[in-house]
Amino acid sequence: MLSFFSLTHAEHAPSHEFFRGQLVPCHETPARAEQVHQALQAAGHRIETTGFPDSRALLGQVHAERYLRFLQGAWADWLARDPANAARQPWPSTWPVRTLRSDLEPREFSARLGLYSFDNGTPLSAGSWAAAKAGCDAALAGAQALAGGARAAFVASRPPGHHAGPDFMGGYCFLNQAAVAAQALRAQGHARVAVLDVDYHHGNGTQAIFYARSDVFFASLHGDPSTEYPFFLGHADEEGEGEGRGFNLNLPLPAGTPAERWFAALEQACARLQALNASALVVSLGLDTFEGDPISKFKLARADFGRLGARLAGLGLPTLFVLEGGYATADLGLNAVAVLDGFEREGGR
Amino acid sequence: MLSFFSLTHAEHAPSHEFFRGQLVPCHETPARAEQVHQALQAAGHRIETTGFPDSRALLGQVHAERYLRFLQGAWADWLARDPANAARQPWPSTWPVRTLRSDLEPREFSARLGLYSFDNGTPLSAGSWAAAKAGCDAALAGAQALAGGARAAFVASRPPGHHAGPDFMGGYCFLNQAAVAAQALRAQGHARVAVLDVDYHHGNGTQAIFYARSDVFFASLHGDPSTEYPFFLGHADEEGEGEGRGFNLNLPLPAGTPAERWFAALEQACARLQALNASALVVSLGLDTFEGDPISKFKLARADFGRLGARLAGLGLPTLFVLEGGYATADLGLNAVAVLDGFEREGGR
Repeated sequence: MLSFFSLTHAEHAPSHEFFRGQLVPCHETPARAEQVHQALQAAGHRIETTGFPDSRALLGQVHAERYLRFLQGAWADWLARDPANAARQPWPSTWPVRTLRSDLEPREFSARLGLYSFDNGTPLSAGSWAAAKAGCDAALAGAQALAGGARAAFVASRPPGHHAGPDFMGGYCFLNQAAVAAQALRAQGHARVAVLDVDYHHGNGTQAIFYARSDVFFASLHGDPSTEYPFFLGHADEEGEGEGRGFNLNLPLPAGTPAERWFAALEQACARLQALNASALVVSLGLDTFEGDPISKFKLARADFGRLGARLAGLGLPTLFVLEGGYATADLGLNAVAVLDGFEREGGR
Repeated sequence: MLSFFSLTHAEHAPSHEFFRGQLVPCHETPARAEQVHQALQAAGHRIETTGFPDSRALLGQVHAERYLRFLQGAWADWLARDPANAARQPWPSTWPVRTLRSDLEPREFSARLGLYSFDNGTPLSAGSWAAAKAGCDAALAGAQALAGGARAAFVASRPPGHHAGPDFMGGYCFLNQAAVAAQALRAQGHARVAVLDVDYHHGNGTQAIFYARSDVFFASLHGDPSTEYPFFLGHADEEGEGEGRGFNLNLPLPAGTPAERWFAALEQACARLQALNASALVVSLGLDTFEGDPISKFKLARADFGRLGARLAGLGLPTLFVLEGGYATADLGLNAVAVLDGFEREGGR
């Protein structure tokens, strides 16, 4: 499958994150993308690494401009406070929950970081903007490949994007590649685009971006947020709002869910997206549903990823896969290739 | 002046906090209250340290029950996850800003901590609940002293309370002693109570608790939130809502504000609370407006604290002082005593 991969991802390389209350080494590392790159090469998939179009205009359609301005300048702002900050990690320190205001942007750097963050597990680094932006450019390139007649393409970007909302970062995500891809497909003339999120963690950012819209249907299979990240979104009663009512489908599943139950939920999502006549599909391809994932609790085996790819090919839609999570790094590339090969085996070349 | 001081404060003794993006030793320490205690003794003020009434019922009138349940059990819950946590500090890791839900309480501990926190500068410790609750009991004791005929009293509690909102901790605050005191004065029959917050930092928690009420007027003089903590509340356009419209007065002042300008703002607050016919006064007495404070930027000298006390005595109202911030620890007790002595000199014994 034609794949899009920007080497710029490696510029985003923070060292530590907060995970469930404690500081730990980052789970989301450059080695993840390198494993995927190598596995794609070994399996003979064609990989584009340069010459991507500029996604900046599309970014402004899925993210707030003030958030984009902050994120693009954030590392320079952090250094401007103190050159010694080059060796320090900035953490959000204060953030605006209930009764606190989000409409005004404070001038203090850590407060702006807090305004635009919903966790302290998403460490900003010197190359965060460049890496995330390159991923969005790759997503746009993938969408253009579909417009050019490709049945499917794979965007092997990192950091991931599906937790990044209209105006906040979180969950290792800064910019929402899947949302950019969906928006690009809409601009190509697809009246309704489906985003199917199969990451272990609910794609709260993508849901939030499209929650009031009927032209992008969002469906997600994920760990129950009452115990699993992102904790504060992803429940079954979130069905969309306004014009978007009926165009959001959450299928939370308990920790430990085995493959058969997971595939049954996948059928529900597939049935709905077919009933809604989506004409193009973006798959937020998290691979942390893998039985060997260190921070997730589903039980998919490698063969299940092939089955996933084959099932999605059966939908018969132009399909863009966008890499999201997956932290069993050594297996990540093989699991990604299993999905793509399963898709192509089923005729979705 | 009759003072109320619980030795239980010392049970809250965390080691570190996040301050403007970096982990630093706590500014809010047991030594603060000890300095105040010693200065009160040296100046001959009468101090009650035991036999306070139980403020639990009042707490339920100013804080959400689910927040109180969480806070009371939080340290035990943290230890139940892993006994080794006794030596570890839990930090909020994920929190529900815009588009994320606050209506459901996750089961995961760090997520519940995030639900109920608006910063990571308010480290939970084994004795946080006990210390904060004892401060609220002391505040109720102070309010009862006023009902018994005392012209004024001083609640020398810590941790402080004015950043603690209806259902969140923050700014070193867990439970809002000033709000408890105001609620107690209302229950005594005062038709309108004024809370005057002179801490360097805006009392966002107190404002939020009473924002829709006309029976408690909240006024605050503080550093401009565009550069000063708590960043996301305290602007001049926040005037109350619903029945509370017109009963909230914010007077943000720029960093570096000298004493004369500060006292001019104080006059505005005094004029409004007199115009609104408040019959009792709670003073959120932060002393971080002091010129020697390490984290604040106003320029009050010790003599200015005497002037503040004298001015407040001139209002002629039953007055309860509640200790809030102030981080120039060695001066804290002398500055507090300066306020109380100024008040009594002006006839407010």
